[in-house]
Amino acid sequence: MVLKLDVSKSELSSEEIQELQAMRKRCARRILLSTTLAASGHPGGSLSSLDMLLVMYAMMKHDPANPRMPERDRAVMSIGHISPGVYSVLAENGYFSEEDFLQGFRRTGSGFPGHVESIVPGVEWDTGNLGQGLSTAVGMAQAHKVKGETNRVFCLMGDGEHQKGQLVEAMRYARKYRLDNLIGLVDRNHLQICGSTEEVMPQSIRKLYSDMGWEVIYLEDGHDYNALFQAISRAYGNTSGVPVVIIARTIMGKGISFMENQAKYHGSPLKPEQLAEALAELGVENDLEKWQELRQQPVRTHTIMAPRTDYPEVSPGEPILYDAKTMTDNRSAYGNALLGLAEANNNGTPVITGISCDLEGSVKMGGFHKHSPEAYFEAGIQEHHAAAMAGAMSCENLVTFFSTFGVFAVSEVYNQNRLSDFNHANMKIVATHLGLDVGEDGPTHQGIDYLGLFKNLFRFSVFMPADPNQTDRIVRYIATSPGNHFVGMGRSKTPVITREDGSVFFDTDYVFTPGRADWLRRGSDATIITYGAVTPSCIEAWKLLQEAGISVSVLNMASLIPLDRDSVIEAAKAGPLVTVEDHHVESGLGVSVATELVEAGVSTPLVRLGVRRYGGSGKPAELYQQQGLDARSIAETVRELLK
Amino acid sequence: MVLKLDVSKSELSSEEIQELQAMRKRCARRILLSTTLAASGHPGGSLSSLDMLLVMYAMMKHDPANPRMPERDRAVMSIGHISPGVYSVLAENGYFSEEDFLQGFRRTGSGFPGHVESIVPGVEWDTGNLGQGLSTAVGMAQAHKVKGETNRVFCLMGDGEHQKGQLVEAMRYARKYRLDNLIGLVDRNHLQICGSTEEVMPQSIRKLYSDMGWEVIYLEDGHDYNALFQAISRAYGNTSGVPVVIIARTIMGKGISFMENQAKYHGSPLKPEQLAEALAELGVENDLEKWQELRQQPVRTHTIMAPRTDYPEVSPGEPILYDAKTMTDNRSAYGNALLGLAEANNNGTPVITGISCDLEGSVKMGGFHKHSPEAYFEAGIQEHHAAAMAGAMSCENLVTFFSTFGVFAVSEVYNQNRLSDFNHANMKIVATHLGLDVGEDGPTHQGIDYLGLFKNLFRFSVFMPADPNQTDRIVRYIATSPGNHFVGMGRSKTPVITREDGSVFFDTDYVFTPGRADWLRRGSDATIITYGAVTPSCIEAWKLLQEAGISVSVLNMASLIPLDRDSVIEAAKAGPLVTVEDHHVESGLGVSVATELVEAGVSTPLVRLGVRRYGGSGKPAELYQQQGLDARSIAETVRELLK
Repeated sequence: MVLKLDVSKSELSSEEIQELQAMRKRCARRILLSTTLAASGHPGGSLSSLDMLLVMYAMMKHDPANPRMPERDRAVMSIGHISPGVYSVLAENGYFSEEDFLQGFRRTGSGFPGHVESIVPGVEWDTGNLGQGLSTAVGMAQAHKVKGETNRVFCLMGDGEHQKGQLVEAMRYARKYRLDNLIGLVDRNHLQICGSTEEVMPQSIRKLYSDMGWEVIYLEDGHDYNALFQAISRAYGNTSGVPVVIIARTIMGKGISFMENQAKYHGSPLKPEQLAEALAELGVENDLEKWQELRQQPVRTHTIMAPRTDYPEVSPGEPILYDAKTMTDNRSAYGNALLGLAEANNNGTPVITGISCDLEGSVKMGGFHKHSPEAYFEAGIQEHHAAAMAGAMSCENLVTFFSTFGVFAVSEVYNQNRLSDFNHANMKIVATHLGLDVGEDGPTHQGIDYLGLFKNLFRFSVFMPADPNQTDRIVRYIATSPGNHFVGMGRSKTPVITREDGSVFFDTDYVFTPGRADWLRRGSDATIITYGAVTPSCIEAWKLLQEAGISVSVLNMASLIPLDRDSVIEAAKAGPLVTVEDHHVESGLGVSVATELVEAGVSTPLVRLGVRRYGGSGKPAELYQQQGLDARSIAETVRELLK
Repeated sequence: MVLKLDVSKSELSSEEIQELQAMRKRCARRILLSTTLAASGHPGGSLSSLDMLLVMYAMMKHDPANPRMPERDRAVMSIGHISPGVYSVLAENGYFSEEDFLQGFRRTGSGFPGHVESIVPGVEWDTGNLGQGLSTAVGMAQAHKVKGETNRVFCLMGDGEHQKGQLVEAMRYARKYRLDNLIGLVDRNHLQICGSTEEVMPQSIRKLYSDMGWEVIYLEDGHDYNALFQAISRAYGNTSGVPVVIIARTIMGKGISFMENQAKYHGSPLKPEQLAEALAELGVENDLEKWQELRQQPVRTHTIMAPRTDYPEVSPGEPILYDAKTMTDNRSAYGNALLGLAEANNNGTPVITGISCDLEGSVKMGGFHKHSPEAYFEAGIQEHHAAAMAGAMSCENLVTFFSTFGVFAVSEVYNQNRLSDFNHANMKIVATHLGLDVGEDGPTHQGIDYLGLFKNLFRFSVFMPADPNQTDRIVRYIATSPGNHFVGMGRSKTPVITREDGSVFFDTDYVFTPGRADWLRRGSDATIITYGAVTPSCIEAWKLLQEAGISVSVLNMASLIPLDRDSVIEAAKAGPLVTVEDHHVESGLGVSVATELVEAGVSTPLVRLGVRRYGGSGKPAELYQQQGLDARSIAETVRELLK
């Protein structure tokens, strides 16, 4: 029978306190056993935060029999390394057996990894890299607010990680958006790996939160059950519009005399002889050997949870057709499509949400903002927080668009997007101002690495539309399709792509399909493979070559991840290839094509045109010319190749 | 004759104030003309920070005739977009002519890009991505402290960028290390792109700095020359150990009635008719047409500064030989080599500096710290700040090692490293705990993207040593070699690589050469190309295959950027290839090899072994086996390939 504490009560009964003490003893034993058995792991912080975890799980809304129950309160463990503590408490709460945990902890293929992951029943979010958890919790809390739900979001943080600047970004955001359904918990043991937090990087965490406008509840003793209960009760009932943090003074290694306040136990387990001593101190039996034998057996995998699959019903709305004479930028086409999605889906409770970072106008989110003010979030110049928040929000049955310049949406927050990738999120990153097409703002603002960066992840698709029509279809596609999607575009106005007869290529019959490229032109001598902002130049090159009696194909690779292997090989079998991209030449499409050729054992000449040095500050057309990416240079390259 | 203000005086004379007013008028004219001529750029903030810039340059130590004079005070423009203001003031100070600036601003190939770059005489650092400038200035200030130099470092910041968390990291660091030679200047115009800073993301910047322990000088009127002079004098004479920031209330678009306090002028220039009005208001002649004609001529390039080339004399010290029986980790070999470098170079004023983020012990910097406490910097869990600071410090005649886990040294701070790349820095990033070799800590801590990330830059080499001996030589090499270098390694102990006869392969005769691979074994049937932590498994596979009568070569590609093309092609001509790496298979060595094959037109079967999904939490050997990276799987792959 799992302990449940009534948040409406003023204090705990002595029976409840005794029960918590008994639970603590069982959990402390598991923390020590599990880390010694694994010969690695983090016992110190697990013991300092244990009492907080016990009271929190006894008070929050959750159901071990239904770990993903929608009404559950969310618990984000920003300190993913205290997995021994979290798993011990989840076992205590009946999410799985002690046997499963102790037999599998930190073993390959087991359901109990070294940092908490959502494959473990009861774990909400994969964490490990410090400083991101609060942003994740903010994303969940904001999602519940948008949907008018009363779920609370708990976020357990360490004190050392408060050195990360991203936390300040998250604090500011939570205050601005009045997230009083968010409850921060800080395990203030004053120790981090290299020693005292005061020596490593002095700061007052209490001051930090109050300066950021949060309500701070400070507990002199983070191991006092009644104090924890009363603090969480107060925070749980908070409707002030001000987010609350409970900062609890705790003791690293709490409960084991020789471990207390020892920084080294942050990340090192006890040796068997020390364990014996510790278990004796706890007054529990030392059954280490029994578990050592059990760990000789194959790991049990029946507790492993599958990734979340819930995703809202989304109407793609009516596609917009831009006629052949239209001259606009893909950004505007994105903005129009996003507005269309809002009109089709945000009547009543919003389904589509949008986040930007002080660039609403540049990324064309203004129309969406106007239509769905309750679903648009201005995160300020705080990209690290915004990206992490967007990832979490996108897992709460909301379609979450995150838009800013490419350099900020990809290069600056690569590791935040990586964590969303781990977490099987549903992010829709639509980045504008990519490549040399940014022009005069110069190299710091020219993102030429987006494909090279996303190639390092496993669960992000990468789409680069060639014109406003394809942008419209792709934006509607990603809204209706679960998972992480990146859509990138340049800054400048770009012509509508047409067929040879002048008719619109991506017309209303066109359906965007990931992994399928578009044959914009069919020729016999060679193929130009391209995407994005330089596609029009490739078509112009096609024309120049045609005038010179050379017949080339132009293949538009709007879907870069996944790649259209069949079309690449088809092109390679037909003749030489030239890849053209507004991207670093050593990490973009060209190398992907080369790799496909080798994989398929098809040998054909390939010339890779791309960005070979940092771009300058000037007109895009001139920057392209400087790097051989203009129509004449492309045509010349093909001509040389065919000599 | 350039205006010089005497910092020791108590106030400005009326002549000096008149001169500043005259300078302002000339500079305001250039700001307006340059942006209208370019039809893009940022006039608003240039006008709000103009008075600060004028007084600052009149007070700081600098020499237009010798822009890189070592004794100069440094000025970092964290708001790189106010280039029109900066260039106008530099022209006023005689760094170059007004003609050069106005004729070239934002034109391709000119020396006057849209965001400030160090190709412009008088510009210290390429900036553009907000929030990094203070970390850069901190790196310079720390460098001067280490070297016992009295140079001051000015950092001009905007108010909007104070939303970036990295700034808080930099503030904390500056306070901890008592950088009273650092002078922050904040252009507090209360406007950012999307409107008022209070609406976009509320905060008190004054409170922020004082809470971080800085001395705050607030100026009600950031356009009052005497107030600016007195504030900067006070800051200039600061020896309190407390860093100072001057927060000046300014007016966006100051001086042009219809531009004042208009957010839209952050990033948009005046139209010609508005310009005429503005110039009339300034009481200066409107010679727009003359400049428009001048801009029909080719850009002038004679002002363009070459990258910094100064680099200290460094002794590599005595290489350490690890004998064939040694079993240690490359981290320890790095720590030993770093200590050796300190012993050889840090007698008296330090030449070698080291920075870590709460992981001194794990990255084995303890010995260095002990030997050179004045040259070791503990930045706390603040990687964004630490990486940016390291880049700047490495440009001040110091050899700067930045070490933490791979995920934090590369994945988390990719964009900070990118800015160091722009700036031709001399960073020595030595990252430990890379790849599945991290083991039980699991996927969030397993960096499998380092090569894939650095491929997107242009000025970083990437070296992955195979054993402690090669680690020792590579670490000594990068210390003596200018430029940005990345050295990566795993976590586990690894055997010393030997020749077939059992002798040490990387012995004392071995000299590490970038772009040269090592033939660990020579065979006739196929070649295994590998690097880093999986190299021993490849040698084991070689042995297994030898026992099976198959003769393969093992090529160790310790230098991944630059790559040893010749050896790759030599191997390809000899037979099939198998690449083996503890790295994402779609962004690592395998795709580089495939690309080289296509480039060279050499066709041979290639199998790319690498990380194909996120690793688990368990013993490295088991994680390798799961992904086919263990000796048996590698041997099996070769066998299959040769069937």
